[in-house]
Amino acid sequence: MTYCVAIKLNAGLVFLSDSRTNAGLDQISSFRKMIVYEQTGDRFMVLLSAGNLSISQSVREILQIEQIGDGAESGEPITIWNAKSMFDAARVLGAAVRHVYERDGAALKRSGVDFNVSMLFGGQIKGEGMRLFQIYSAGNFVEATSETPYFQVGESKYGKPVLDRVLTPETPLNEAAKCALVSMDSTLKSNLSVGLPLDLVVYEVDRFATDKLICIDENNPYFRMLHDSWGQKLRQVFDSIEDPAWNGGSTQVPLMVSTGRNKPLRKITNHQDRLI
Amino acid sequence: MTYCVAIKLNAGLVFLSDSRTNAGLDQISSFRKMIVYEQTGDRFMVLLSAGNLSISQSVREILQIEQIGDGAESGEPITIWNAKSMFDAARVLGAAVRHVYERDGAALKRSGVDFNVSMLFGGQIKGEGMRLFQIYSAGNFVEATSETPYFQVGESKYGKPVLDRVLTPETPLNEAAKCALVSMDSTLKSNLSVGLPLDLVVYEVDRFATDKLICIDENNPYFRMLHDSWGQKLRQVFDSIEDPAWNGGSTQVPLMVSTGRNKPLRKITNHQDRLI
Repeated sequence: MTYCVAIKLNAGLVFLSDSRTNAGLDQISSFRKMIVYEQTGDRFMVLLSAGNLSISQSVREILQIEQIGDGAESGEPITIWNAKSMFDAARVLGAAVRHVYERDGAALKRSGVDFNVSMLFGGQIKGEGMRLFQIYSAGNFVEATSETPYFQVGESKYGKPVLDRVLTPETPLNEAAKCALVSMDSTLKSNLSVGLPLDLVVYEVDRFATDKLICIDENNPYFRMLHDSWGQKLRQVFDSIEDPAWNGGSTQVPLMVSTGRNKPLRKITNHQDRLI
Repeated sequence: MTYCVAIKLNAGLVFLSDSRTNAGLDQISSFRKMIVYEQTGDRFMVLLSAGNLSISQSVREILQIEQIGDGAESGEPITIWNAKSMFDAARVLGAAVRHVYERDGAALKRSGVDFNVSMLFGGQIKGEGMRLFQIYSAGNFVEATSETPYFQVGESKYGKPVLDRVLTPETPLNEAAKCALVSMDSTLKSNLSVGLPLDLVVYEVDRFATDKLICIDENNPYFRMLHDSWGQKLRQVFDSIEDPAWNGGSTQVPLMVSTGRNKPLRKITNHQDRLI
């Protein structure tokens, strides 16, 4: 499995991916799932991929040469390098996904393998604002809006609660990077198929380039601090909330109780303690 | 969907279930997923169920009359009410699941519906210690051990990190109840198909009865306090961890970068900031 998260804020974009790939528990390898497309001053795009590794690697390779349109109208076919909008660049990516499907889909199906790939693609092209897309196996895609400032692909559930609690479009960039790392930390803790190292990119709006790219392994001091602090402090918070206490008051609890064979299930409502 | 969690501690057992059932997003209802079987002083058992509601309701109904063995050897067929061990009671439950499969399985398959039911069954019968089982659709089951003191069924991922961080066999009962409620709170926050009210039962070892049964709705003061405190304090912890800072140092980051069409993907290793 994989866990990737991408966040779109007013201040910029955050991308984070793990690097574990597994085909069964005894075939675990490390593959990078992030790729950066950069023409300094003109466009900055990041692609994160989850799903079947052979498909996502093929998509990435084909994306380098993929084009849409025959250029008859505009004079030039559209590629990710000359697209005038991120929407068009996402269309090129969708076309690359369909290209791989046409090439491999039937053979994969014969082998009982689903055509499964899921990608996050975000960035900014000069002339418009930042945009973030999630691309599905069919090559179709959806765009993040201010109501939903993030997308996840892969093993997304463990790390979702903290994103829901923290992120809004107004969240500062470094705080969002921290939030993505906490989300990843929870996922690492609960799922063996997600693993270090991590790739993190932070992009500031209107820069069309970034210096903030990093590969985080187990020796990274910030991630170690975050991992230890989050675990410890979460435990302190947990301890600081009082335990439930029970007193002898009764509540109207229509709980299903059975007291013997062939006796009907009945609802009891009056012999419970109250939780205070 | 559903979320149920059951915890086995040295001090006793904790059971918690939500009550939302949905067949599509526009068919949401409230059904209780917990049932208590109690013969005071002799046995105390709790059943939590997830999966297809028609199946789990049938299993619960049949369990009232289900028996295994013809009584030829021991003189009496085994039911959950006379079983001498929780293991035998779990076998009766497994037989009830298979009974429903024989009755409904083929017809469900014709309609394209999986025979999908997943249950947690725990308690204590006089003469042995407490035991906790997870029962699958095939009627087979596994038992919780001290290395794995809890089981979850249904929408389990959102609420798993806090269980992994807190629970050990030594955890006190009320603390484990609090942990189950925090786990449920995270699940409620992230998944619409899990909903209030909740059923909570706390059982103390060797009592063969309990007063600690409660139905928790949105007006329950403890759960409201926990919900508010956990959200607020989690946010405080999050804020108390310093944001990542970036300096101009370089790291060896083999990140995949492309800078133009038809250019090979290349690894860059030397123009990144260091995350400190």
